[in-house]
Amino acid sequence: MSNRTKRYFLPESEIPTHWYNIQADMINKPLLPRNPSTKEEMKPEDLYPIFAKELCHQEFDQTNRWIEIPEEVREMYKYYRSTPLVRAYGLEKALGTTAHIYFKNESVSPMGSHKLNSAIPQAYYCKKEGVTNVTTETGAGQWGASLAYAAKLFGLEAAVYQVKISYEQKPYRRSIMQTYGAQVTPSPSMSTRAGKEILTATPNHQGSLGTAISEAVELATTTPNCKYTLGSVLSHVTLHQTVIGLEAEKQMELAGEYPDVVIACFGGGSNFGGISFPFLRHNILDGKTTRFIAAEPASCPKLTKGEFRYDFGDEAGYTPLLPMYTLGHKFTPANIHAGGLRYHGAGVIVSQLLKDSLIEAVDVDQIEAFDAGTLFARAEGIIPAPESCHAIAAAIREAEKCKETGEEKVILFNLSGHGLIDMTAYDSYFAGNLVNYSYEPEKKD
Amino acid sequence: MSNRTKRYFLPESEIPTHWYNIQADMINKPLLPRNPSTKEEMKPEDLYPIFAKELCHQEFDQTNRWIEIPEEVREMYKYYRSTPLVRAYGLEKALGTTAHIYFKNESVSPMGSHKLNSAIPQAYYCKKEGVTNVTTETGAGQWGASLAYAAKLFGLEAAVYQVKISYEQKPYRRSIMQTYGAQVTPSPSMSTRAGKEILTATPNHQGSLGTAISEAVELATTTPNCKYTLGSVLSHVTLHQTVIGLEAEKQMELAGEYPDVVIACFGGGSNFGGISFPFLRHNILDGKTTRFIAAEPASCPKLTKGEFRYDFGDEAGYTPLLPMYTLGHKFTPANIHAGGLRYHGAGVIVSQLLKDSLIEAVDVDQIEAFDAGTLFARAEGIIPAPESCHAIAAAIREAEKCKETGEEKVILFNLSGHGLIDMTAYDSYFAGNLVNYSYEPEKKD
Repeated sequence: MSNRTKRYFLPESEIPTHWYNIQADMINKPLLPRNPSTKEEMKPEDLYPIFAKELCHQEFDQTNRWIEIPEEVREMYKYYRSTPLVRAYGLEKALGTTAHIYFKNESVSPMGSHKLNSAIPQAYYCKKEGVTNVTTETGAGQWGASLAYAAKLFGLEAAVYQVKISYEQKPYRRSIMQTYGAQVTPSPSMSTRAGKEILTATPNHQGSLGTAISEAVELATTTPNCKYTLGSVLSHVTLHQTVIGLEAEKQMELAGEYPDVVIACFGGGSNFGGISFPFLRHNILDGKTTRFIAAEPASCPKLTKGEFRYDFGDEAGYTPLLPMYTLGHKFTPANIHAGGLRYHGAGVIVSQLLKDSLIEAVDVDQIEAFDAGTLFARAEGIIPAPESCHAIAAAIREAEKCKETGEEKVILFNLSGHGLIDMTAYDSYFAGNLVNYSYEPEKKD
Repeated sequence: MSNRTKRYFLPESEIPTHWYNIQADMINKPLLPRNPSTKEEMKPEDLYPIFAKELCHQEFDQTNRWIEIPEEVREMYKYYRSTPLVRAYGLEKALGTTAHIYFKNESVSPMGSHKLNSAIPQAYYCKKEGVTNVTTETGAGQWGASLAYAAKLFGLEAAVYQVKISYEQKPYRRSIMQTYGAQVTPSPSMSTRAGKEILTATPNHQGSLGTAISEAVELATTTPNCKYTLGSVLSHVTLHQTVIGLEAEKQMELAGEYPDVVIACFGGGSNFGGISFPFLRHNILDGKTTRFIAAEPASCPKLTKGEFRYDFGDEAGYTPLLPMYTLGHKFTPANIHAGGLRYHGAGVIVSQLLKDSLIEAVDVDQIEAFDAGTLFARAEGIIPAPESCHAIAAAIREAEKCKETGEEKVILFNLSGHGLIDMTAYDSYFAGNLVNYSYEPEKKD
């Protein structure tokens, strides 16, 4: 008992020096974004008005397998990386399972989630290119808080549009962003044309990531020296997040195991891609047979019930058309507490991988997610974010199967964030006030 | 730049196997507690009705320098220990100081503070002795959350009295305790004789640690198979917390430095003693000359303005009489946000050490504390608890002195907890609504 290792760390010298670009190894490359007006395939240069140039090139890069992490970014990663890989002995015991469950604990970042992994390089590249202001949207506030801090680190001003329902449900997250000096506006707002149009059509609109993206992109493209940044969906964001899986790969080696199943919750795909892609490369290149499971909310099931087609990334239709699994860009997700999963589409890489059956997806009801999160909290001590509860629920399903068959499968999931700022959600759960929302497809006009 | 180490960890095999009992090395031993009725010196057995027996013996142990950490406790420590020792390069740069600043980051515990270090052994010893229910008080909620989780780990029921002002200011902390299955009551309450008497005398009493202790002790002594547990003040709590300083000692060695100054905030003394005593032993035994600074709130200054005398640990006068620096057990501290520092007395070991000039104390105003905390958050990414802000403020004062003299002193402080559940306090600070409370001595009857 006492010699069992619980947590695995890497020395700073082992923190990855390169991100892994899975596009280079994909047989079927992701389709290219298209210009919404001309419908023509886009090039990196077409995105220069919105994003830092370097990020535009990362977005389209289908050839370089390894992208070097700038030294300044690696220096900032040292503030909280490596994050621990944890053997979930407590959870295994609570479940009575034969499975070996591991989780990568991204909640130990000072911002409480994995989002900082991409906020730092995005702010870095903006700064390097002479940008002075950055803008973004945030759902639960995890991304907004991370961008606010990263902006502060590099001396940039940050303006964040926070989805209105989250702004109201999670006031602490707004305070956190303000502590780092960011300006925070609930979205939809009257500060943009997009916001005004949405509020005119639907005065009580509760907001969604799609709506907030419209506002942030509009601000970026109409403000001098200002760039937009995004916390998920896009390929360069997922690229930065591969630091999670690359660390986990080395840490699983320290544990002397290799995952049979890798699981993450799914909003736009960044934490899922981050932990999965480095392992998936061994399926593609080395004949490994690991399964990859994206866990999405039952009320916002783009992977399990969406269509693969070109669609806008935002509600107003400002972004390029992206080839992805989508519920339609006008879809407004139900007000589940997992604000970070309330998004209509999936990133283009994940979409292509799902189409090619290289990954799987499951959907999880809100109450099952909180059942899982509470069981996990009591067993492992960490209160998970509502988003991460979906990954835990999917991991528990797999562990329960092992319990039946007696198999000792190795299950690895990503604990994308903690839920300390989401305690009102847990209060609702314990009071019996949480409901399951079923998926209602958008009405076709 | 890129070869600079930011965080130092210990492998699990290096996590301390013994706690350090400074009482064994003190020339002037702490005076003994006295029975409030007979005024006679007490023995461990006299505390059996209140605490687990093993803890009573640890409380009085003045001879054994090293106390073995039970294997079950060490196994639980692995969930979050070692905590990182961090070189605060960001803060050093923000201050422009020549000092080398380090902090021990106890905020990475799943409960967000150092309190779990003692909650685990206290719950363990209770369980081992056949106790089924534990009770305690909590100020900011950090201790209550830790005890709630530790009780859950060992299958005990927990009842927590939370200081009313904190219960209202920090609702998330109550939710966290409830997530771990604890019953939480705002104190003073009508559920105990002590609470009723206080509310009868002062209907709008906002509560204090002293008041909540009275209620919890009363519940423990009137309920079968129930023991009381305490988050600070007592010598056995400080003993458990020495795991902080013992780790820090090894980690400073990894960093190739030794502290000239060790700083911690001060409520009852557990985090201060925890980080200080292992280093202080080298002052006593090996001729080192490290300074030890306890940072207390200006509005509750028992170390800098209190008297050394026998006093009760609680407001109602249920506890033994303790020889300590005190503001008087009837003193109700001002409603500062650092709820964990709102206590009238100091632990007996720290009191004796201060009397013998082996340690120092400074007081810090509320606004200086939040100035320091905000500077730290922006420089290091971590939003500190209001309590920890006091330690940071004291560390900054020392670093500013180095800036003037050009000295490269090594400053080590304990980051006892994060402030993610205290964002309303930061909101008040940013809104300009925080005030400094001066100390007003209790009225003598």
